[in-house]
Amino acid sequence: MSVGPREDASAAEERAQEEVYMRAALKQARAAAEEGEVPVGAVIVAGGRIIARAYNQRERLKDPTAHAEMIALTQASAALESWRLDGATLYVTLEPCLMCAGALVQARVERVVFGAPDPKAGACGSLYQVGLDTRLNHTFELQGGLLEAECAELLHDFFRDRRD
Amino acid sequence: MSVGPREDASAAEERAQEEVYMRAALKQARAAAEEGEVPVGAVIVAGGRIIARAYNQRERLKDPTAHAEMIALTQASAALESWRLDGATLYVTLEPCLMCAGALVQARVERVVFGAPDPKAGACGSLYQVGLDTRLNHTFELQGGLLEAECAELLHDFFRDRRD
Repeated sequence: MSVGPREDASAAEERAQEEVYMRAALKQARAAAEEGEVPVGAVIVAGGRIIARAYNQRERLKDPTAHAEMIALTQASAALESWRLDGATLYVTLEPCLMCAGALVQARVERVVFGAPDPKAGACGSLYQVGLDTRLNHTFELQGGLLEAECAELLHDFFRDRRD
Repeated sequence: MSVGPREDASAAEERAQEEVYMRAALKQARAAAEEGEVPVGAVIVAGGRIIARAYNQRERLKDPTAHAEMIALTQASAALESWRLDGATLYVTLEPCLMCAGALVQARVERVVFGAPDPKAGACGSLYQVGLDTRLNHTFELQGGLLEAECAELLHDFFRDRRD
């Protein structure tokens, strides 16, 4: 199939828009790093606008469930006044863990876009493929590697500084 | 190996104590049913006392993350002022889903005891065996079937009433 110039332009625009959302998630991740938290950030988009922005707050809140994705899901549900987030997309700088991937199924999120893979704990391609498990009552679309280098660098820098 | 009367008595005492904790979780589950929520309840025990009691509040809070186990984990972390719940045991009336099982790994819970299995979404024996996955940075002991009939009946009654 040949792709004409119009389709090319449209795909480029879509890609640019995706990057805008991931940069918003990266901004959240940097805020986490400034507070000494593992730098992971997330935003949720519905109806063409960002309805939730959050970063990892496990240490500050002393709460094992306070990952960026979980806080963003709670915010988005409050914004939409519903636990169902049909049609929503989550952008997150790091591949979601089992807890967060399971929560994305619970929330009926339509699509998940992540930056850096997490070979040790990732549940969206690395250790598990949660969003693609058709035995569950919901599946979601999955895309990894958007702005991967920037997302990974933030984590590498954080752990390097902590070791020093 | 033969088991003497002393061991028998000790095992019976332990079983009785386990049932006390699961009955506390069942009480939480009944509170959920009274509010029109899917009746699942959980308690967390540490140092020989209950430090968290919670029930499913997904509808009331309009929050997909508001399962009984998640709320109990947040409560327990607040009680211990730490996201690490080393040595803690969670008692829950229904087999945990992926989100909750992943959260139990995040919280470093030592042991999980559940009542009824969940063949459609359970991640502690039914669809997944999350607590036994040695690739993750924590595993937990797992026991299913404690007061299973009572835990399952509560759910059956709830869904039967809702269909009528």
